[in-house]
Amino acid sequence: MASLFVTLEGGDGVGKSTQAALLESWLIDQGQTVVRTREPGGTDLGGEIRQMVLHRRGHIAERAEALLYAADRAHHVATVVRPALERGEVVLQDRYLDSSVAYQGAGRVLDPAEVRDLSLWATERLLPDLTVLLDLDEAASRRRLDAARTEYDRLEAESDSFHARVRAAFLGLAADEPERFLVLDATRSIDDLQAEIRARVATMLG
Amino acid sequence: MASLFVTLEGGDGVGKSTQAALLESWLIDQGQTVVRTREPGGTDLGGEIRQMVLHRRGHIAERAEALLYAADRAHHVATVVRPALERGEVVLQDRYLDSSVAYQGAGRVLDPAEVRDLSLWATERLLPDLTVLLDLDEAASRRRLDAARTEYDRLEAESDSFHARVRAAFLGLAADEPERFLVLDATRSIDDLQAEIRARVATMLG
Repeated sequence: MASLFVTLEGGDGVGKSTQAALLESWLIDQGQTVVRTREPGGTDLGGEIRQMVLHRRGHIAERAEALLYAADRAHHVATVVRPALERGEVVLQDRYLDSSVAYQGAGRVLDPAEVRDLSLWATERLLPDLTVLLDLDEAASRRRLDAARTEYDRLEAESDSFHARVRAAFLGLAADEPERFLVLDATRSIDDLQAEIRARVATMLG
Repeated sequence: MASLFVTLEGGDGVGKSTQAALLESWLIDQGQTVVRTREPGGTDLGGEIRQMVLHRRGHIAERAEALLYAADRAHHVATVVRPALERGEVVLQDRYLDSSVAYQGAGRVLDPAEVRDLSLWATERLLPDLTVLLDLDEAASRRRLDAARTEYDRLEAESDSFHARVRAAFLGLAADEPERFLVLDATRSIDDLQAEIRARVATMLG
């Protein structure tokens, strides 16, 4: 079996979980062993960190927040992702370093290049083989979220202009690494999106 | 008033708290406003991180541990240390970036220069005006700890050879920055050590 590290990126409500679940089922049918995971919070330690960052009352200094996400990532990659890849498994992951760069870097006040370097240090430079970016303009994203939930967490409660900056940052990252990214218009049908993702993954699995 | 950032470094049991308490009293007598603090754990968030790192069951990946300490530091410097220095106060701090470099870098498996860079990023390059290194050979340090406590936390439970490497790392850092460091033999009497520290601080306060 060929190991493969696939990440799904994009704003909240774009359909990452739906696409990951469908892809997981298909991969299992193909005889692959799949580890489906996420950041932040893909380990017990990460769950505690996620709780700290997303739901804690009171201000957290910008750099502290970026370092907490990087700590979660370092532990998750060392204890979950790398071991699975070394066993020849497929890792399907909801959010990875591109989210940190888009949200913490471009979205906030920190230098995106520095935030990226932090993640690369945390993971000993582990980049995904494929990153699926589900792109949705912010008005459509907001409508989906409003329909789905009544309460937002800290990041979701940020303004539309914040989401616009995050979206632009994701698109910029994809433009920088066209080989790694598959950018899809998230307003397309679920089945249509899934077919295109499967076609790409099938090629990579040979 | 002149702001001054003083850190105390050295292994556990060398007398950092004792010297900090005596120095604080003297500074207050001199009319200074003093903030006495520590890392890890100098803020509420830092307390949660300290609990996570020092007392949690189960393995924490090396880089994750270093990043958690850096997150604690980032938050502490941004919310406690820098505001105090900007108010013209004296900050007396038990452990700072030299501890991270000595324990995480030289003591463990990470590159000391990378661990230092992480702290410098976390703090936007805030270095102490004075770092008092209380130096004690590992046999003397172990005797003091054995006499004082019956239970060790994770770091204290490490072997004597680990403590020897940490001590060597501290002395190396002091040799690299002789202007910033005041290295004192911690087997000298409490009063004798305090007199030398006060003399140096008095010079710096002008």
